[in-house]
Amino acid sequence: MEQTQGHTLKAFDRDMAELRELITDMGSFAEAAITEAMRCLVERDAAAAAELVEADVQLDDLEAEAERRVVQLIALRAPMADDLRDVIAALKIAGECERIGDYAKNIARRVRRLPKKGEIEPLSLLPEMARIALSMVHDVLAAFVGRDAEGAKTVCARDDALDDFYESIFRTLLTYMMENSQNIGASTTLLFVAKNLERIGDHATNIAETVYFAATGERLVDSVN
Amino acid sequence: MEQTQGHTLKAFDRDMAELRELITDMGSFAEAAITEAMRCLVERDAAAAAELVEADVQLDDLEAEAERRVVQLIALRAPMADDLRDVIAALKIAGECERIGDYAKNIARRVRRLPKKGEIEPLSLLPEMARIALSMVHDVLAAFVGRDAEGAKTVCARDDALDDFYESIFRTLLTYMMENSQNIGASTTLLFVAKNLERIGDHATNIAETVYFAATGERLVDSVN
Repeated sequence: MEQTQGHTLKAFDRDMAELRELITDMGSFAEAAITEAMRCLVERDAAAAAELVEADVQLDDLEAEAERRVVQLIALRAPMADDLRDVIAALKIAGECERIGDYAKNIARRVRRLPKKGEIEPLSLLPEMARIALSMVHDVLAAFVGRDAEGAKTVCARDDALDDFYESIFRTLLTYMMENSQNIGASTTLLFVAKNLERIGDHATNIAETVYFAATGERLVDSVN
Repeated sequence: MEQTQGHTLKAFDRDMAELRELITDMGSFAEAAITEAMRCLVERDAAAAAELVEADVQLDDLEAEAERRVVQLIALRAPMADDLRDVIAALKIAGECERIGDYAKNIARRVRRLPKKGEIEPLSLLPEMARIALSMVHDVLAAFVGRDAEGAKTVCARDDALDDFYESIFRTLLTYMMENSQNIGASTTLLFVAKNLERIGDHATNIAETVYFAATGERLVDSVN
């Protein structure tokens, strides 16, 4: 290593800060995608939904960039022990953000499956579920930025509430289908949207577990996945 | 570095071979889990399905072990360039295997939602879809072991066939639901199973893309996710 240990440490910290910023950008992108996907769904805006599906490639590119930087950072700075664990955690979290974006894309893809006009009663149940999922994503990214183990833990705890919400929507949608076979197409679409939101919560939980492990060296038990 | 370059290289190769073996074990575990989950579903064996759900924690442990070894390998052997990229690829593939196991677990979880007795006609459609998904997982792991870029590419190509199969099952299940509201519960369950199988194909494709990139340094375009 050509630099003194002090310089190497500073360079590592700077590279790591940049990597964190990149991942925070990925998280913000994923958050915005969820919000926009739900707007498209509720307003049945198929044109904007199609654009959102196209835009997801940007998140894939950001993940590839994060991976490139991780490889570069390890090669140039040779981080050890806790630092190396932090880098690997960042790589995993980048992957989770990309997957959350995928679920937002999946929601956007379903918009064209809904009828363009006419009331779809159970559609009103989903925005509240989306709000919970979105708040989990938002808060776990804040915990990542602040290396906040306790904050990460509270995000995990909220995943149970999201799962309960999903189960309740699932039963409601089944009832709608049984009442009238005309509802089956739209209800099935909404069932998948609810499942996507539930999975977003699972990925927020994965991030929370990674943040907790990186901060404490201990694993959170009772993983949801 | 205390060792000569030759010794370090050999040590890296040995560690890497062990890491690959661990990941191949994860893949085999995931494959077996898919096979068993489908058997439980077809035979409606809820007891064995519950055991399978419990067993998934072993795959989580294997992923944690892979991660631990990656950190150790980087710290001890300081791999550079292509070697480092190989290590990072292995870590990503371990994550994908864990997720494939998750989907097998999700299928097993649905078994108890099916009625214990009585014919469920559309159930007969799913084993063939599972066979395609399973063959993709099997072949992409072989491509990983053999660093076979071309083999990885053919796995990606098969994902379109799996997606088409899914769409066809989706429409068939919707028709069953519309014909008779008594079918809605079971058909919805099978809809989610079909979706899980389709997602397993997506993750096999992710592995294929990673194997291809590690072997060639180029990205496969037209990613499915």
